[in-house]
Amino acid sequence: MTVSESDHLDVERIREDFPILDREFDGTPLVYLDNGATSQKPDQVIDAISEYYRTYNANVHRGLHHLSQEASIAYEEAHDTVADFIGAEGREEIVFTKNTTESENLVAYAWGLRELGPGDEVVLTEMEHHASLVTWQQICERTGAEDKYIRIDDEGRLDMDHARELITDDTQMVSAVHVSNTLGTINPVSELADIAHDHDAYIFVDGAQSVPTRPVDVQAIDADFLAFSGHKMCGPTGSGVLYGKRHLLEEMEPFLYGGDMIEKVTFEESRWNELPWKFEAGTPNIAQGIGLAEACDYLDDIGMESIARHENELAQYALERFAEFDDVETFGPPVGEKRGGLVSFNIDSVHAHDLSSIINDYAVAIRAGDHCTQPLHDKLGVAATARASFYIYNTREEIDVLIDAIDDARQIFG
Amino acid sequence: MTVSESDHLDVERIREDFPILDREFDGTPLVYLDNGATSQKPDQVIDAISEYYRTYNANVHRGLHHLSQEASIAYEEAHDTVADFIGAEGREEIVFTKNTTESENLVAYAWGLRELGPGDEVVLTEMEHHASLVTWQQICERTGAEDKYIRIDDEGRLDMDHARELITDDTQMVSAVHVSNTLGTINPVSELADIAHDHDAYIFVDGAQSVPTRPVDVQAIDADFLAFSGHKMCGPTGSGVLYGKRHLLEEMEPFLYGGDMIEKVTFEESRWNELPWKFEAGTPNIAQGIGLAEACDYLDDIGMESIARHENELAQYALERFAEFDDVETFGPPVGEKRGGLVSFNIDSVHAHDLSSIINDYAVAIRAGDHCTQPLHDKLGVAATARASFYIYNTREEIDVLIDAIDDARQIFG
Repeated sequence: MTVSESDHLDVERIREDFPILDREFDGTPLVYLDNGATSQKPDQVIDAISEYYRTYNANVHRGLHHLSQEASIAYEEAHDTVADFIGAEGREEIVFTKNTTESENLVAYAWGLRELGPGDEVVLTEMEHHASLVTWQQICERTGAEDKYIRIDDEGRLDMDHARELITDDTQMVSAVHVSNTLGTINPVSELADIAHDHDAYIFVDGAQSVPTRPVDVQAIDADFLAFSGHKMCGPTGSGVLYGKRHLLEEMEPFLYGGDMIEKVTFEESRWNELPWKFEAGTPNIAQGIGLAEACDYLDDIGMESIARHENELAQYALERFAEFDDVETFGPPVGEKRGGLVSFNIDSVHAHDLSSIINDYAVAIRAGDHCTQPLHDKLGVAATARASFYIYNTREEIDVLIDAIDDARQIFG
Repeated sequence: MTVSESDHLDVERIREDFPILDREFDGTPLVYLDNGATSQKPDQVIDAISEYYRTYNANVHRGLHHLSQEASIAYEEAHDTVADFIGAEGREEIVFTKNTTESENLVAYAWGLRELGPGDEVVLTEMEHHASLVTWQQICERTGAEDKYIRIDDEGRLDMDHARELITDDTQMVSAVHVSNTLGTINPVSELADIAHDHDAYIFVDGAQSVPTRPVDVQAIDADFLAFSGHKMCGPTGSGVLYGKRHLLEEMEPFLYGGDMIEKVTFEESRWNELPWKFEAGTPNIAQGIGLAEACDYLDDIGMESIARHENELAQYALERFAEFDDVETFGPPVGEKRGGLVSFNIDSVHAHDLSSIINDYAVAIRAGDHCTQPLHDKLGVAATARASFYIYNTREEIDVLIDAIDDARQIFG
């Protein structure tokens, strides 16, 4: 069975687009399994960025000259491409930020800091990333609102009974990660949205791990806000997105103040620009927005359904291989249950950092640490985990290399 | 006299580094005079970004694997390069943001929103960019503090007597643009810093137009904060910098919350990471930081003193040429007085937008509008101005092309 047959994606063909995958360390080919942290970039995206700088770089919106017109059209149409990618109604609902974290903070500051107060509650999950958890924790502390956390069960699933208990008429916002970056759990965000809306609360979906790896339609999940990062989906660093329902973004005050987000300024007052520019103050990340749109096109050509299947298959295969070891613990839903394309694990006798370091000798790149989910790690009773996370260019054979490396690490420390 | 002799810079050689300067529109070579909005990028910077994505792209700080180590070292050392470029004490004082605007908002939110209150005053200048003016205006409105504006004289210089009058013991912050993006005025920020410090106030210097075009030493001007953008100094879009004195950044609470900026998180509370990472939440703009450092090296090799001289010479030459027309009004300091490399102007009979549009037919890129200084334009009594802004690759011959285009425009509308 060839790689492409087993994976449905034509992985061999895809790998040719990613120059970094040719790298070797001491003659050993790179096996890049740190995609949950950031994905690699295909030539198409790298070239789109270079092409921008080489041929039509200019500031956007404000210029009448040729270059500025070309740059403005490309930058503004990049919003349309991203809107299509997630099923938004149009560019008005797509704000370009620098990363998921800024998107979270935008809503927390522009909406939360103004709207929340004592008696209000924000409901999160125990598996939130720090981008969501720390942000809402701090906004709650500053406003007197209370943050509450939906429990997870022993296999890393949300306790939906607890969700229904926690989300009440006092709840103003539910903030939930779509696919856990530590557990691989796919959360029922659509169901959470229904519960939130039944109580007139909003739902903010952290799509950092879901948008790059599966079809995400904001209408289908009825998200009020959705945040994700370009750099985890073949796009450049420094690119993030905040989707918001149009009427919500219209009602919200701006977050960052400056050029481009205003319509009129005097020494006494200011009026704001139309969406989405109201939320994009100053010279935006133009090349990054254009690169992100190229990445959306690239992923669309492959097909998000196929990518989701590929991700799940690799995760299942990894779980099966991990099960060969008695002393390896994996976290999150068990084999057989659909999940995102990542597996966090620990070996009894080896600290995750040591493990990741030894595995690095085999040119296998995984991550060790708390994956920006310290409270979840506390809950799991571990200080750190090792995490292998997969993407469109990864193969079963690469997981075999990982497993061999882990086996050697066990024997070194065993 | 050759171009290189007249300009001190070897402009012909420099132009070879900028691929976009080969562009033509209908057979007419591009004359790019919109550098105040954004500069073009040399091959060195474009290639550094591509090289990053092609060979060592990875998330930073958190990874133990080869790629992450390479990316982390490059990204962290980029902070050192920027620190050296402006005379800061070290990377702890250099926060990478997405643009000058974010840097302004960082201080306004993290310091201003917490520290300002009724009775406090923020003193700005009448020539502030919206990034500074709107931001402090809004923070003052939210905190009950008052914003006041230092007057300018008829030739666009700050009225320093008025500065001494406005800055009092009630003043908490002075926010001043170093080089006006509309007038070209070089403000005495060092003197403003002394006055501010005499009253125990801080000074925030908007260096968006100064850092790219002249030597700026934060010790020499004694700035408490300095903000600037990479994209105006040969660096990528989506890169900005906030310099802050170490003890001030240490005392300040964070702005954006999320991964990387924390040391410890529980469901109850969070502790912050060390400088500068405390202010860089989430996956940072890694490629952009690396590109910005390459841009600093590029400019350093040319020499900032030479660049400042070149900028002033081109501005003086442009003013002399503009003086040939009776119906052209220029703004800012008169010919003979040192200024930044830009000239804003109007023709009696032609709206700035029409002018810029006609000039575009000659493939000359200038900007028309309010240049994000609407209140200053109100003060000048004009709705808009046209602006030609110069950089290291511009020549007197290009200014001659601009002047010819303006002359034709006068005759079309005359």
